[in-house]
Amino acid sequence: MSKTVHHEELQAFVARIYERLGVPSRDAQTAAKIAVAADLRGVDSHGVVMLPRKVDYMRRGLIEPNPKIQVDRETPATALLDGGNGLGEVVSRRAMELCIEKAKTAGAGFVAVHDSNHYGIAAYYAMMALEHDMIGISMTNSTPIVVPTFGREAVIGTNPISVAAPAGKELPYVLDMATSIVPSGKMTVYKNLEKDIPEGWAVDRENQAMTNPAEVTKMLYSRTGGGLLPLGGEGEEFGGHKGYGLALVVDILSGVLSGSAFGPNVYPQKDGKPAPGNVGHFFGALSVDSFLPRAMFEQRMDELIHDLKTSPKAPGQNRIYIHGEKQFEIEDERRRNGIPLSEPVLDPLRKLADDLQVAFDL
Amino acid sequence: MSKTVHHEELQAFVARIYERLGVPSRDAQTAAKIAVAADLRGVDSHGVVMLPRKVDYMRRGLIEPNPKIQVDRETPATALLDGGNGLGEVVSRRAMELCIEKAKTAGAGFVAVHDSNHYGIAAYYAMMALEHDMIGISMTNSTPIVVPTFGREAVIGTNPISVAAPAGKELPYVLDMATSIVPSGKMTVYKNLEKDIPEGWAVDRENQAMTNPAEVTKMLYSRTGGGLLPLGGEGEEFGGHKGYGLALVVDILSGVLSGSAFGPNVYPQKDGKPAPGNVGHFFGALSVDSFLPRAMFEQRMDELIHDLKTSPKAPGQNRIYIHGEKQFEIEDERRRNGIPLSEPVLDPLRKLADDLQVAFDL
Repeated sequence: MSKTVHHEELQAFVARIYERLGVPSRDAQTAAKIAVAADLRGVDSHGVVMLPRKVDYMRRGLIEPNPKIQVDRETPATALLDGGNGLGEVVSRRAMELCIEKAKTAGAGFVAVHDSNHYGIAAYYAMMALEHDMIGISMTNSTPIVVPTFGREAVIGTNPISVAAPAGKELPYVLDMATSIVPSGKMTVYKNLEKDIPEGWAVDRENQAMTNPAEVTKMLYSRTGGGLLPLGGEGEEFGGHKGYGLALVVDILSGVLSGSAFGPNVYPQKDGKPAPGNVGHFFGALSVDSFLPRAMFEQRMDELIHDLKTSPKAPGQNRIYIHGEKQFEIEDERRRNGIPLSEPVLDPLRKLADDLQVAFDL
Repeated sequence: MSKTVHHEELQAFVARIYERLGVPSRDAQTAAKIAVAADLRGVDSHGVVMLPRKVDYMRRGLIEPNPKIQVDRETPATALLDGGNGLGEVVSRRAMELCIEKAKTAGAGFVAVHDSNHYGIAAYYAMMALEHDMIGISMTNSTPIVVPTFGREAVIGTNPISVAAPAGKELPYVLDMATSIVPSGKMTVYKNLEKDIPEGWAVDRENQAMTNPAEVTKMLYSRTGGGLLPLGGEGEEFGGHKGYGLALVVDILSGVLSGSAFGPNVYPQKDGKPAPGNVGHFFGALSVDSFLPRAMFEQRMDELIHDLKTSPKAPGQNRIYIHGEKQFEIEDERRRNGIPLSEPVLDPLRKLADDLQVAFDL
């Protein structure tokens, strides 16, 4: 059972929910737009499926509906932003706007954010730079569900990195990757497909490979040891220490440098109950113009993309992808035909609407 | 057969070689210091073992001994640097100095470099930021020896990324990683150990796994198809597209944005003969002070490191490492006891000295 919903209707619904909880209309629209952007791009794990959890946090007083977002420190090319424990989407959009503003005059702008919350898809903020002919960077720390190399307890997050760069005739380059082999959302995908996950994605507290996605999810959120493996896998033979290292870079910039929580202290629990997430983010914008004339850069991007796409394919493959390409194709299709929402996604939304006495028209 | 050489003697020897070729004394010292820094840190593949190739390029007129390094464009937080086809070490040190200078006033400094050459170890430049209480970033594109996801021809480099961040009582964090599973230097290590490499590091032109390290090296530099695999391995199941994506980020910033060669065109060959490398680099410095008071940042870094190192170990492991830690330990030992150089490394150095009529006293 699934339903196909027009993205504008879905966005309006999410915004209504947030407004009902006291989020100012403009911010509710922002958070709704970014949630739906994930669904449009096929990153379903970061879209409206997250709404019930965010609403739950807000109703418990763990996310501020109308936060005081303010600049703590500032230089020509940097800023430290206090997210005021607001919705990650609202705080992050503001932070990226600040990066872009700074890059316009200083050539580059970098903003670290403390006291924020889950920000949805990393790529949204990196892509904000594209329309300004800038390269955008976005990263965030997150719930500790990843095991460090030679460890067996999850003390770091899946800490994603996104980088977006404009091209000319070609689609922009948009990398958006967890620094673990897979993000936790892949467990749900495999569970819904009734498939085991491959050995090598997750280990239990005894460091044994796990293959049942439902059990992995349960383990991740019980925080009793075990977790997802970093990009490169277990040990060092295939570079697991590199994925672990990239996760630390993200945490150093997003958590340590911002004054937010980091490592095992992101999304902490107090007496078994959730406490404010205290998530940290880090954003950057580099103005292309500061380095090369825009048209020249774009033509060179097209050339790089062309070189890759026309290079010989591995046996059984007929296409080499550029990062973001698959997502642009999904977005194109879903803008036209709507976003498919399965019953396990729709049902909690229906309940939310009921609960908050908001019209449900999806 | 191997010999242990004091690092200062080794550095003096390398500098004499470069001076003999017309490199100004100060630049010769810089290039020598950075080469020996690699050997000191145990990154032997990027140390004096590379000298014969660099000298060969210089004697063929493919590297300028006394380049005109100049700033093409500049904003408060960015610069584009023309490396004048000089030694990568000399050009890159200059570029990182410029990042640091800019970060002192603008909070952040980012410099892209074109027309440079192999710059040795990436970490050297990132670590230059540490003594200024800054976070340093260093990356470079390189000879195309890596196969993109779903491809079977090497069109991108091992494109390393280094990030260094200061700590307090703990050692600084220093990540220095190729974006491929392993750098090409690992082939030499395995060859010298007379061991096969694991399946999954490299594929031939038919996309078959290769395990003979000497054959892999031969294949890589013949440029006839096949290559090393990106971090995450073949296909997408274990995230190979992420390693491939990171390699592209490095190439976009180092090559495309700088106006240098990129993708398959780095270290090009003309009529089967080597041409100037046209390598691009990208450097950054973020002033910690622009975000948090230095002491607070350092204390927080110590806390993150402590959290990681005290977390439970996997069965059979007794230590969780922080990036750079192993290299600091090797450096400490080698500064005291000297750098071990094997005969396959010493012999070409001896020949160089003979050839150039430079005293050989190692």
